[in-house]
Amino acid sequence: MKRIMLTVAYDGTGYHGWQLQPGEISIEEVLNRELSRITGEDIRVKGVSRTDAGVHAEGNLCIFDTESPIPPEKFSYAVNKSLPDDIVIQESREVPADFHPRKWDSEKTYEYHIVRCRHADPLRRKYAFCCYYDLDVQLMRQAAEYLVGEYDFTSFCSADTEKEDHVRRIISLSVEEHGDEIVLSVTGNGFLYNMVRIIAGTLMEAGKGRIPPETVEKIRNAKDRTKAGPTAPACGLRLVKIRLIDPPWEK
Amino acid sequence: MKRIMLTVAYDGTGYHGWQLQPGEISIEEVLNRELSRITGEDIRVKGVSRTDAGVHAEGNLCIFDTESPIPPEKFSYAVNKSLPDDIVIQESREVPADFHPRKWDSEKTYEYHIVRCRHADPLRRKYAFCCYYDLDVQLMRQAAEYLVGEYDFTSFCSADTEKEDHVRRIISLSVEEHGDEIVLSVTGNGFLYNMVRIIAGTLMEAGKGRIPPETVEKIRNAKDRTKAGPTAPACGLRLVKIRLIDPPWEK
Repeated sequence: MKRIMLTVAYDGTGYHGWQLQPGEISIEEVLNRELSRITGEDIRVKGVSRTDAGVHAEGNLCIFDTESPIPPEKFSYAVNKSLPDDIVIQESREVPADFHPRKWDSEKTYEYHIVRCRHADPLRRKYAFCCYYDLDVQLMRQAAEYLVGEYDFTSFCSADTEKEDHVRRIISLSVEEHGDEIVLSVTGNGFLYNMVRIIAGTLMEAGKGRIPPETVEKIRNAKDRTKAGPTAPACGLRLVKIRLIDPPWEK
Repeated sequence: MKRIMLTVAYDGTGYHGWQLQPGEISIEEVLNRELSRITGEDIRVKGVSRTDAGVHAEGNLCIFDTESPIPPEKFSYAVNKSLPDDIVIQESREVPADFHPRKWDSEKTYEYHIVRCRHADPLRRKYAFCCYYDLDVQLMRQAAEYLVGEYDFTSFCSADTEKEDHVRRIISLSVEEHGDEIVLSVTGNGFLYNMVRIIAGTLMEAGKGRIPPETVEKIRNAKDRTKAGPTAPACGLRLVKIRLIDPPWEK
């Protein structure tokens, strides 16, 4: 029995998120189906980040156990042949049989993409949020500073969540301009439900001049979801990378 | 009667190109249908660039005549409401009744996007060509130099074309790197059928080291399509801009 870890990229547009859901199509379901087909086993992957409906990924991680003779690093090629073209395995490797990346210390990096436009851009409509308002990037950067560090992020967490511990550490949060596109890039040791989208929605409120940047400190301290900005649309969000801290195979 | 000019952006993935074709869906057909619907007239747009199946545009141009009371600059908003989200009017304006942008001097800019990757990128698969080979950008730039200027571009023109005059002027042709993406940007006074895609295919041959850059001069002088590289896939190509030279409304 071998444990294989996959790095998975996907266009989340057509999926109801990562996680299996009755009556809806999910990334997890498609991976289970195709891995089971090529191995002849009943494969159930375990993912690290349960991205929401419509959210994209360049590097989500998942594991599964198999007795298949396919060499671990060849799984990517074998599965990509039969996966739909909106899900692509970027890498496959063997990991220790007791290794679970969700339980391992990691840093996750998300990006939120915003296009400033009067009319939508059909080439980016699925991968960025089109903002018709003027956004002052300098104000967004000032607001972002109040979110870097270890805090209780209850104000930036969907009220739907069941998790009790809302303390997370944001290691970096940058606001970069690339032509007419604004990219928020945030790295942290973990994120609450909808946290990056609520941060994006709040920074856009600051960028529009609707709230002064320093208000973000008060919003953070309030530990009250109703004080923060709206949850920005899923299409602008992508999980860029999950960096495992000192994994066993690098020791 | 007013003549309206539209700047049209589209994701060409789902279309059989710009031009009306029996039994196939085209950008032109969808524009005719929606413009006719909102004006109550029988609208037939006349486009400038008849992009191929799968090719994208950020700024194609077309005109149509109408008696509609919709203010010219509001047509973009009116039509966008009913267009599918892969076609978006970026601008609408009134032009003189005898003005036809296809007959007016212009400079067109196309980009060809290449992603260097081992496995496809699901977020860019529709808007860039995924190249599994190493590409030497410096070699591509050297090869590109032989194509800037006024030449007979028969070697870079699909043999299917009916046009007899193959002389065109390329004003600039740059090869830029943005992370793992290579963007060819070419501006000229006009382009032959498949010309940018054949240029892209030929520069990639140079980038792979399969042909020395200086061979591109010989290929150009040969005036023989069989000497140039393959036609690169449509998905990587986008018409970025059609710049009209000194249009009447700027005089």
